[in-house]
This record gives sequence, C-alpha cells and structure tokens, in this order.
Amino acid sequence: MNETWTTLVGNAATRPDFWETAAGVAVARFRLAVTVRRWDRRSEGWTDAHTSFYTVWTWRTLAANVAASVSLGEPLLVHGTLRVREREKEREREEARQGAGEGESGPKRWVTAELDAVAVGHDLTRGTSAFRRVSQAKPLLNAPTGATSP
Amino acid sequence: MNETWTTLVGNAATRPDFWETAAGVAVARFRLAVTVRRWDRRSEGWTDAHTSFYTVWTWRTLAANVAASVSLGEPLLVHGTLRVREREKEREREEARQGAGEGESGPKRWVTAELDAVAVGHDLTRGTSAFRRVSQAKPLLNAPTGATSP
Amino acid sequence: MNETWTTLVGNAATRPDFWETAAGVAVARFRLAVTVRRWDRRSEGWTDAHTSFYTVWTWRTLAANVAASVSLGEPLLVHGTLRVREREKEREREEARQGAGEGESGPKRWVTAELDAVAVGHDLTRGTSAFRRVSQAKPLLNAPTGATSP
Amino acid sequence: MNETWTTLVGNAATRPDFWETAAGVAVARFRLAVTVRRWDRRSEGWTDAHTSFYTVWTWRTLAANVAASVSLGEPLLVHGTLRVREREKEREREEARQGAGEGESGPKRWVTAELDAVAVGHDLTRGTSAFRRVSQAKPLLNAPTGATSP
Repeated sequence: MNETWTTLVGNAATRPDFWETAAGVAVARFRLAVTVRRWDRRSEGWTDAHTSFYTVWTWRTLAANVAASVSLGEPLLVHGTLRVREREKEREREEARQGAGEGESGPKRWVTAELDAVAVGHDLTRGTSAFRRVSQAKPLLNAPTGATSP
Repeated sequence: MNETWTTLVGNAATRPDFWETAAGVAVARFRLAVTVRRWDRRSEGWTDAHTSFYTVWTWRTLAANVAASVSLGEPLLVHGTLRVREREKEREREEARQGAGEGESGPKRWVTAELDAVAVGHDLTRGTSAFRRVSQAKPLLNAPTGATSP
Repeated sequence: MNETWTTLVGNAATRPDFWETAAGVAVARFRLAVTVRRWDRRSEGWTDAHTSFYTVWTWRTLAANVAASVSLGEPLLVHGTLRVREREKEREREEARQGAGEGESGPKRWVTAELDAVAVGHDLTRGTSAFRRVSQAKPLLNAPTGATSP
Repeated sequence: MNETWTTLVGNAATRPDFWETAAGVAVARFRLAVTVRRWDRRSEGWTDAHTSFYTVWTWRTLAANVAASVSLGEPLLVHGTLRVREREKEREREEARQGAGEGESGPKRWVTAELDAVAVGHDLTRGTSAFRRVSQAKPLLNAPTGATSP
C-alpha cells in the first residue's frame, strides 16, 4: 500500500553487481543515470537539463538476466517501486572499516533514491536488441557472473 | 498538459506493422497484451486475472528499431502517454470500403486504448537481450522492413 | 503482477454513483474526462488536443468519501490500476432488457478503459479544498448517498 | 524528454512554505512523508514497512492553493516529475551563514528527492474535502500566506 511506482529512462552508470543472498536468492544492483533533456527554443535543439542517479535493485530471474545482458553505458528502461533511503548505519560502518572517523563529524545521513525493479529492458529508442527467452523453471544456481557480496 | 503517463508490461500480440507517413516519418504500430496476475492463496501460485489489449504507436528511430527487434509474443516494457480513442469515422470508412453496411446499424463507437510510446524494451524478467546501439544521425529512409500503409 | 499503475488528471464527467454490494462493500463509480492540452506556438497559448474518458471505481472508505465530496465537473487527480475491459455480455444483456436486438448485429464488443482507484483528490491546480479527516473505524453502513445498484 | 513522472501518496511532513520569486512567480514547498504499508500474514493486518521523504515544489496558482489548503499531517496525493538533487553548494552556503565549518569536513553531498508537482489533492481515502474553484485569471499578488524567502 502506498507504493511509489515509477519508470526510469536512462543509462547504466555502473556495470551490474551480481551476487546471491545467504538464502540463495539472486540479486543484481547497478546505478542508473537519468538525464532530463529540454527543448531549447533559441538553438532549436535538445540540451541536457540535469541528471539524477538511482540505485536499481533486481531479484531472481530478472537479476540473472540483467547481469547477463546489461553493460556499462547502455540505455535502459526500468519499472518498479521507488524508495528514498537514509543509510546512516551503513555509512558509519563503512567509515569505521576504512579507519576514518576519529573526532570527525562526517555525513550523518546518506540519502539514496532506490528503485526495486519488476521489469528492465534495453531502450529501443537508441538501438536494436536480440531477445532470447530463458526458461523460468531454470535454477538460478548457475548464475551468469561470479557471485560477489555487496 | 494533463498527459497520462504510464508503463505497460506485457507481450506483443501482433508483429509490428511498419510504414512511413507521406511526410517521411517512420511509424511502427503493434498490439500489446497485458495480463495481470494475482497471487492465489489456496494454490500458493500466480494465476491470470485478466488481459487488457493496447495499441502501441512508435515513431522515428524507435519505430525502426521496434520493427527490427520485436517479434510476435515477445515480452515487452512500454513507456509513454495513454489515450482512449473513439474511432467512429475510421470504422465507418473501413466498413464502407468492405462493402458492408446497407441498413445495418453496426458499431457506433469503436473504443481503443492507445499508447504513444517514448521508450520500448524487451523485458529481462523473461529472458536475455543483446543490445546494439544505432546511430541517431542515420537516415530513416532505409527502414528495416517494407513500408506498408495502415 | 503486471498491474498498470497510472494517474489521471481530469474532471468528473458524471456524478459518482454509490451503492453497496451484496457483501456490504461500499462502491462509488464515475466517469472521468481527461483533456490533454498542448502548447500552440502560433497563438502562444494552450489548446485542447483530445479528450479520453475513463470509468473510475472506488471502494470502501474511499467510495464513501468520493460520494460525499465529488460533484459533477470538479477537477480531480485519480491514482490506481488501469484495465481495458470488453463488456460483451453486459452489453448484450442491456440490449435485451431494452427490447432491442431482433436480427440487429449491434456492437459485438464494448470496450471501456477502467481505473481501480486507490487514491482520489480534488486538484488544487484549479481551486482550494477544505479537508476533514474521517475515522477509518467508522462503519460504512451510513453511507452519504442513497444506495443504488449498478 | 526522459522526465520521471510519478505519483506520491503520503502525508504533509511540514506546513507549506510560500513565497514569490524575484520575477513574481508564486512558489510553495513542503516535505511529504510516504509510508509504504505491507500486509502481514501472521497478524492479518497492515504494518508500516518504511518511510521515504520528498521535497515537493509547486508553482503559480497551484502554489497559492496548496498554501491556502494544506495543513501539517494531512494526507495528500501528489503528481509530477521526480529529480534526485545533490545540493552541495547550497549546503556549504548554509553552513557558512551559520558560522560553522572552520576546518570541519561536513557533508560533501546533500542528496534530496524532489518532486516538481503539476497536480496535488487531499486524499479522499482518509477523509472528505469541500472544493471551491478559483479563477485562474486572478492575480497571484494577494497570496494567501505571508511571503517568505527560502
């Protein structure tokens, strides 16, 4: 209830990072850059207005296929639910790990906009794609890229 | 103003029909079937709830790439603006062309839900895709499929 | 799964019709007109481009509040899931009731675009609104308008 | 192009702050809390899953009506375009103004999720609203609340 459904049209700003959870669920995560373009009357052309960055999360079969299909910089269409997340603790933990932080205040909040995707596709506005159906019954154990933890 | 932006997740119910307008603008049109699935507590599985059909319109480079990439039945993700259209006159014209209609009342309204797409992609939830970028400067004259009029 | 979430910005084209189902669930239904407006360079102003009509369904507390708050013509913002419905049987039943149909072909399909709303509000772009919170524990039996069946 | 249209269903987490720009354009800004609720099978009830905060911007007539209609805590429905913004410079300026910052590192990035709204309404899921149409020709000079600068 109250889920914020949205669709992002942008480019992969990182390669998908792929791993499996302790429970054996496949996960792929990547950053997406969404650049809004506006029509400029004077130059009679489109110009970049501003860029927003999102962290996209995918799960199970979608995660495996994203890891197998998406390369850095490719244009994508991502549909899912949005969440604005404050990652206070994670940030602190990360800083501690890096030996930082004696007396430093540092960022108290680390806000990220995250999209839990239910569908992802290459944007045909910018190119062509050859699709190959994957059986959904297939086990996810033989994931296409080496599993890494976040 | 007041555009109805939406994203459809479904399957191509027809092959894309591709042609160029008199002004030389590439157009590709296809039908998309969107089947909502609901979780059934008793069977502990997903079951089809109902299917909606939409007419999807694409233009220019997107139209050429859709015609070159999309096959019947493939899973797609389509983002654009929605319109509910009453095609009274077209329908009448079509009937007249087919020699129908002496004294018959026939359908007075012919309502279709149409989506003017700005982005289309193969849904990676169901398979993998290999993307190949197309130069946007490329002329659309050498369109990938034979031009047909609607 | 595969639900088509969308938001309509338009005007109530009918008064809400309110009733309770046999199971005692409150329902309110109305038609919404969505008129897209485009910027006209020559006249330097907005002009109406086209109008789409939707049937909006609301349930339970939302239905009671819509029936109590929404008048014909008021500007609204409606968020929910879309469905394109073919109402073949209902249409036939309706025709039969009206004594129509001996030998007539009549419309074989009756397509409507329907939105199952989860949130509805008066659009503050066009006016002001005074909000009064309603307890959700309140029974729906004392519904604000007379119950009518569809 | 590539605008991220979305709809937020939540509650006003601040009162709207209303002012006019140097160019005389009315602006109203407020924070919106969006709390996702999930169905809990064990308790057979809805529980709060997580809350996202957004900064909502409204302009012109909508800004004046939002300032005149929205109170702290009221349930709202907001439709518009999303942007994830890094407010590095503003943050630094703000710190400088407050006399902070000699030698302190402080937050380098200040990320906020912002929605540029085109329509806002009280959510009738939670109560009733009485709407009063405002003439759009009306000048915005007599704004309903005292003008304050951001």
